Amino acid sequence: MRPSRRAPDELRPVSLERGVVKYAEGSCMVKFGDTHVLVTATLEERLPPWLKGQGRGWVTAEYGMLPRATLERTRREAAAGKQGGRTVEIQRLIGRSLRAAVDLEALGERQITVDCDVIQADGGTRTASITGAWVALADCIAWMKSRNMLKMNVLRDNVAAISCGIYQGTPVLDLDYAEDSEAETDANFVMTGDGRIIEVQGTAEKTPFSQDEFLALMELARKGVARLVDLQKLAVA
Amino acid sequence: MRPSRRAPDELRPVSLERGVVKYAEGSCMVKFGDTHVLVTATLEERLPPWLKGQGRGWVTAEYGMLPRATLERTRREAAAGKQGGRTVEIQRLIGRSLRAAVDLEALGERQITVDCDVIQADGGTRTASITGAWVALADCIAWMKSRNMLKMNVLRDNVAAISCGIYQGTPVLDLDYAEDSEAETDANFVMTGDGRIIEVQGTAEKTPFSQDEFLALMELARKGVARLVDLQKLAVA
Amino acid sequence: MRPSRRAPDELRPVSLERGVVKYAEGSCMVKFGDTHVLVTATLEERLPPWLKGQGRGWVTAEYGMLPRATLERTRREAAAGKQGGRTVEIQRLIGRSLRAAVDLEALGERQITVDCDVIQADGGTRTASITGAWVALADCIAWMKSRNMLKMNVLRDNVAAISCGIYQGTPVLDLDYAEDSEAETDANFVMTGDGRIIEVQGTAEKTPFSQDEFLALMELARKGVARLVDLQKLAVA
Amino acid sequence: MRPSRRAPDELRPVSLERGVVKYAEGSCMVKFGDTHVLVTATLEERLPPWLKGQGRGWVTAEYGMLPRATLERTRREAAAGKQGGRTVEIQRLIGRSLRAAVDLEALGERQITVDCDVIQADGGTRTASITGAWVALADCIAWMKSRNMLKMNVLRDNVAAISCGIYQGTPVLDLDYAEDSEAETDANFVMTGDGRIIEVQGTAEKTPFSQDEFLALMELARKGVARLVDLQKLAVA
Amino acid sequence: MRPSRRAPDELRPVSLERGVVKYAEGSCMVKFGDTHVLVTATLEERLPPWLKGQGRGWVTAEYGMLPRATLERTRREAAAGKQGGRTVEIQRLIGRSLRAAVDLEALGERQITVDCDVIQADGGTRTASITGAWVALADCIAWMKSRNMLKMNVLRDNVAAISCGIYQGTPVLDLDYAEDSEAETDANFVMTGDGRIIEVQGTAEKTPFSQDEFLALMELARKGVARLVDLQKLAVA
Amino acid sequence: MRPSRRAPDELRPVSLERGVVKYAEGSCMVKFGDTHVLVTATLEERLPPWLKGQGRGWVTAEYGMLPRATLERTRREAAAGKQGGRTVEIQRLIGRSLRAAVDLEALGERQITVDCDVIQADGGTRTASITGAWVALADCIAWMKSRNMLKMNVLRDNVAAISCGIYQGTPVLDLDYAEDSEAETDANFVMTGDGRIIEVQGTAEKTPFSQDEFLALMELARKGVARLVDLQKLAVA
Repeated sequence: MRPSRRAPDELRPVSLERGVVKYAEGSCMVKFGDTHVLVTATLEERLPPWLKGQGRGWVTAEYGMLPRATLERTRREAAAGKQGGRTVEIQRLIGRSLRAAVDLEALGERQITVDCDVIQADGGTRTASITGAWVALADCIAWMKSRNMLKMNVLRDNVAAISCGIYQGTPVLDLDYAEDSEAETDANFVMTGDGRIIEVQGTAEKTPFSQDEFLALMELARKGVARLVDLQKLAVA
Repeated sequence: MRPSRRAPDELRPVSLERGVVKYAEGSCMVKFGDTHVLVTATLEERLPPWLKGQGRGWVTAEYGMLPRATLERTRREAAAGKQGGRTVEIQRLIGRSLRAAVDLEALGERQITVDCDVIQADGGTRTASITGAWVALADCIAWMKSRNMLKMNVLRDNVAAISCGIYQGTPVLDLDYAEDSEAETDANFVMTGDGRIIEVQGTAEKTPFSQDEFLALMELARKGVARLVDLQKLAVA
Repeated sequence: MRPSRRAPDELRPVSLERGVVKYAEGSCMVKFGDTHVLVTATLEERLPPWLKGQGRGWVTAEYGMLPRATLERTRREAAAGKQGGRTVEIQRLIGRSLRAAVDLEALGERQITVDCDVIQADGGTRTASITGAWVALADCIAWMKSRNMLKMNVLRDNVAAISCGIYQGTPVLDLDYAEDSEAETDANFVMTGDGRIIEVQGTAEKTPFSQDEFLALMELARKGVARLVDLQKLAVA
Repeated sequence: MRPSRRAPDELRPVSLERGVVKYAEGSCMVKFGDTHVLVTATLEERLPPWLKGQGRGWVTAEYGMLPRATLERTRREAAAGKQGGRTVEIQRLIGRSLRAAVDLEALGERQITVDCDVIQADGGTRTASITGAWVALADCIAWMKSRNMLKMNVLRDNVAAISCGIYQGTPVLDLDYAEDSEAETDANFVMTGDGRIIEVQGTAEKTPFSQDEFLALMELARKGVARLVDLQKLAVA
Repeated sequence: MRPSRRAPDELRPVSLERGVVKYAEGSCMVKFGDTHVLVTATLEERLPPWLKGQGRGWVTAEYGMLPRATLERTRREAAAGKQGGRTVEIQRLIGRSLRAAVDLEALGERQITVDCDVIQADGGTRTASITGAWVALADCIAWMKSRNMLKMNVLRDNVAAISCGIYQGTPVLDLDYAEDSEAETDANFVMTGDGRIIEVQGTAEKTPFSQDEFLALMELARKGVARLVDLQKLAVA
Repeated sequence: MRPSRRAPDELRPVSLERGVVKYAEGSCMVKFGDTHVLVTATLEERLPPWLKGQGRGWVTAEYGMLPRATLERTRREAAAGKQGGRTVEIQRLIGRSLRAAVDLEALGERQITVDCDVIQADGGTRTASITGAWVALADCIAWMKSRNMLKMNVLRDNVAAISCGIYQGTPVLDLDYAEDSEAETDANFVMTGDGRIIEVQGTAEKTPFSQDEFLALMELARKGVARLVDLQKLAVA
């Protein structure tokens, strides 16, 4: 029995609320249960130096956590003077995941920066971030289209992400913090709307896992992502 | 005529929503019009080293702004590797303001950290932060009382803050960004529930001001703070 | 009775010595009693990037304290790897205060940097810094005039600053460290030669103060600044 | 045809040379073709603060690259003042991978730090690092055993890692730089001696991949890791 | 002919003024011509962690330059966020030089920190710093003696330093900036009162030098240091 | 008797192995006994900003130590977030030493960066670095010549370095760690192939030394450098 009494293949209640801040070209408050992330997408007519003059754009991401998003207060990274290893790892993952679904040539020489700030953390902040980031990105691109800034289609497909893990011997979908801290194995899957894989990260927290276990997790993830993509489509419709 | 069509002594719509995050001992989403700040109060049973063993506690504050709280994206301070001068100035102000209303001996050897994170910025983020911080602090202290952690009254009075300025020759209350960027003079007042002054910061943005002008601003502030204190009392009732 | 036996409205002995370092375009060793600050003004034919091409100049300030300016040694900020919050706050105040008296268009596309380094600290380092900085700035501008670099008048008025506070129930002028560390209330006033206000910062160190108390402080400050402005005029004559 | 003319399931020449530095408790120069990594294992009788007094030890890793390990010189991270995102990601992966095979209770309250410094980089530095790190770790543990510092078996199994990718449509094993920079898909597998998975990281560099493609990569990895584990056993025999 | 018209073996006018700041246990304003350095010595009853409990003390030094000590303004190291290589090199030299004349066991478990802050720089700031630092250190030790804190003699001998160089083919003593920037060779000598060498640093700025040239410089230095030691003795008498 | 049983004027076994990494324009693994340093020379067609457009090039150096090059593990500077004082001092010395033998005009507007990374440290890492760096530099310049990038001779002479010290009363050559940590006096000499001095750094670790002692060290150094220059000539022949 999962602590949340969910079925093994059951997501937490998911919501994707668009347009939550006034200034951003795209924004989304994404909730996976008690995990709440505020995502904004910012369009800028400038590129990192190493990309200039190549006829294509860039999508990048930054991730942060409000100090009291967590059970105990986490030190503010701005006060500590640097972003921690976990933050760096997550924001690189979000950026890579989104770029896999974007036609950077079609975007033109511009940069979209996606900021994912965790308001409340109950496990799965990176998967919620990616899922919400796609919505904010889609809105940012819609904003550009409505101003005739784009000639071609920029967004090739949906991108969503979900975690799975083996909790007390059973493969389960969308781990919350109570499960995550106890799980033997933990994997994050980032997938497209057509079911292909963008990124897989599986980690044996306690004991190494077998290929069959891994395939069971991937099967769960496939179901979860399909459901999330449906919700994204409803959200941006 | 003010850009927002408000009367000179009219606040923006103010809301103080409590309990907005799950884990914090106290929290408040404060809105002054389009300025939205999420405030949390965290209780910790530890003190900065220089305060240990003196039989009294401490209240401190940290301030941050989400990158896209602003019209154009502001660089994330955690990525820049340090907090900017404006951030430092504001968080020191918030901490001092709250401490003026707290009996640190009665608090005991504990620290309360107030985090003010600006979700959306339309002028007056520091005054909204202080006003909301008092609510989060009050809830944190109530949380302690309900657990019999306090023998005496810790919070001596309400604390609220408002900005005033001279906009196109007229003293006005609670400047929004449109006014703030044009104002000749800008002052922030932090006051107690009984009308005394905790902190005054007046700055001639363009031309120095006379004593009479300053007194007119102080008069407006007195009215504004009285209204904010009423709203705080309603919020925590 | 004040620890220094001064009358409530009596300044410490003030001296403003010009030309104290060889290379700077303007310099001043300012002393308010045992508080000694070495101020230099540096002219540079370059501007911060965000100001370029707007046809006006900039005046900025930096503040530092020698490690043994204080009773106990203070850690060197260069060794600590960053400027502390108090330093940042003070140098922003000095810069704003000076800019309020400078016609930046008349200055042209140049920057004047005022460095205030505290050699010995006995309270009031920020007010001494501002008062001395005006002298160094005036000398820097005189240096420019003598080289025909300026067509118009750049300096609109004098700028001086003084602290006041309520010490053992009495409003007193120009607090030294012994008073400052005991004062109930502490306010810094930056004013022009014609008696208008550039900046007011009042802080209730222990108990909030009333409007009448604040007005009494402002009255003292007005007298003190008038005296400082007289001394500035003597110094640059 | 692969640029190196290897068969799709063929590793580069691998060597694992032990005892390459004088002072370390364990060390290994690992070469995967032109990728050379010097690994040391350091035993220290101290723990990170958060682990003290829990009756178990810790294994952690740090990763670095000599500036001219690469085709063009890479900026020295010590001079840049921080470790980059890629470095942080890799050293966290190495640490997690090794811990999955170590019985931390049996290790006792001690820390082993594994340093992986890339002398020459031709793709696959993280997989070579993990594979060599296991050898250095094994030698460090043997060093402890020979001093009767351990009562129980600490190392549960071998750990080795290999990359796979889809290069010009074909799944291939152990990508070198020429392949890695062209590959559509890139995955790193960390596995145990008995064929279970510790960590999987698959990334669609250009186009998302299907589940079948992923399974083909995993199959290749299984073969490659089995071969690496054989070589480890030979090395420590 | 030297730019300053000095004879080849002639020092600049040297002054050593003691007691120049109010709080320090020892202080000295040292001037070598237009090079002015304010030195303070601070006694603290604590040690760096690696020295605790060994029954001996420590003498260390920090060095800084006010931004406008130089012809053009130098960036403030506290603002830059780190001490530059030159600063680090010089402060290590000062510390080593002083320690060579101090009996650290006799000092007891205490630390003396010498701060050398350059007010005006015209060449030779490190040699002036060392020469003045000895005076501040001597006063700090006298301060301790007068409080019966020392049982034995702590200071074994005088320490002074001077630069020499080959300027337009001629060995000259005590280079000022005009000479230093043109010199072919530049050497700094730190010596004791009895003529022994503590530290020699010779650098061929342009062309390597012969042993005879080096010996000529050393001979000049010996004379210069003897003169400085006489001045130190007069100063502390 | 020296711990290593060497004669007082005997070097440790020295080897200079060229071409040890694949990508660098020049490289050398230099060994002085158990001190091993990997040196690379990188040619870049760019200059530091302050050197641009002056018709001459630059040679600079960086120095690092692998964490377990030492008996106990040293903290990684990239993780600490800055280069320590010793590192800064050494890399500045290496750069200055090499530049003394390079015709920067003949090099043209290019930069050569020499990276010295200590693989194993047993005393004398800076002298080994300089000696090996000359070999890497010579190879880099040969690489340029073979591509017709140079019209004139760039390298004026050999550069090599050796340490000497007074160990148990006897002047000895090429101190290893066991001697260095016990020596009363320690000096490093950087010299050219024709026996002139580029840099001398002598430090009295414990007691100041006399001029005669210093000359005895210089005599030893002269012999040692002559031998090292012979080995360099053999290496690049």
